[in-house]
Amino acid sequence: MWHEENNELVKEYQFQDFLQAFGFLTQVAMLSEKHNHHPHITNVYNKVTLRLSTHDAGNVVTPKDHQLAADIDKLAFVVYMI
Amino acid sequence: MWHEENNELVKEYQFQDFLQAFGFLTQVAMLSEKHNHHPHITNVYNKVTLRLSTHDAGNVVTPKDHQLAADIDKLAFVVYMI
Amino acid sequence: MWHEENNELVKEYQFQDFLQAFGFLTQVAMLSEKHNHHPHITNVYNKVTLRLSTHDAGNVVTPKDHQLAADIDKLAFVVYMI
Amino acid sequence: MWHEENNELVKEYQFQDFLQAFGFLTQVAMLSEKHNHHPHITNVYNKVTLRLSTHDAGNVVTPKDHQLAADIDKLAFVVYMI
Repeated sequence: MWHEENNELVKEYQFQDFLQAFGFLTQVAMLSEKHNHHPHITNVYNKVTLRLSTHDAGNVVTPKDHQLAADIDKLAFVVYMI
Repeated sequence: MWHEENNELVKEYQFQDFLQAFGFLTQVAMLSEKHNHHPHITNVYNKVTLRLSTHDAGNVVTPKDHQLAADIDKLAFVVYMI
Repeated sequence: MWHEENNELVKEYQFQDFLQAFGFLTQVAMLSEKHNHHPHITNVYNKVTLRLSTHDAGNVVTPKDHQLAADIDKLAFVVYMI
Repeated sequence: MWHEENNELVKEYQFQDFLQAFGFLTQVAMLSEKHNHHPHITNVYNKVTLRLSTHDAGNVVTPKDHQLAADIDKLAFVVYMI
């Protein structure tokens, strides 16, 4: 679930293994480049945390973040929820 | 379904879009590097074809190909069959 | 060098190993998704072939292909020419 | 430069853009899976931080970390130092 924390939209994922985690991140990377808006990504093995905020607006959450979050959720829903 | 064709193990995939296709390929890439055995990959948009044969054995299908195919199938099953 | 062949813009690459080849392809993937224009990709180990044509124009080479080719060349120049 | 910090081997990178940063990370991902040893990865836009320690040894730096660091350096040297 995306939640707001210190002026960021944050979501944490736990995948089955590193392959799935990084396969997911690659899709997030392609989406981010398309949106021209890039999350703060943390990954270790099967865990991923994404943090979204808008640098140009002074590092607060803006509609750009909500749009990217919504597109990432479509990805996650279709691909990784079984 | 993997099938044998011209001394290669071949499987064709159709994903929902390019993001899913390339997310899958990234996982195949990591597995291939781990096996030290790399498929012939073809991709256009949401379509992927993988062809496996063993160069060092004279470009025929060997147990190395069947092992990589089996690992790729675990990947595909867990992640993309919904 | 990009050359035209059977109504496609074609370029062939040979990298040092699979890691470099697939690292390059991941960058091509992000660019393609950004352009909303996806090449026909072939890869085996350290070899990559990209083929560009415009499906919506009847599978001929259009300015969309030349633009993507130019952006891919910037990538290749900065990253892989040593 | 890799340096040791809080029982981790740490290295920070700054690339030209996100495409280069994530192309590099994809190569790190393939290497990590091959080593069966995965770094703590942080990325935002063109910045990447890698942190290595060995979970099974109680989260301290071991030869496994130095080996992966050395392999990552070969990658970085060949591909991204211009």
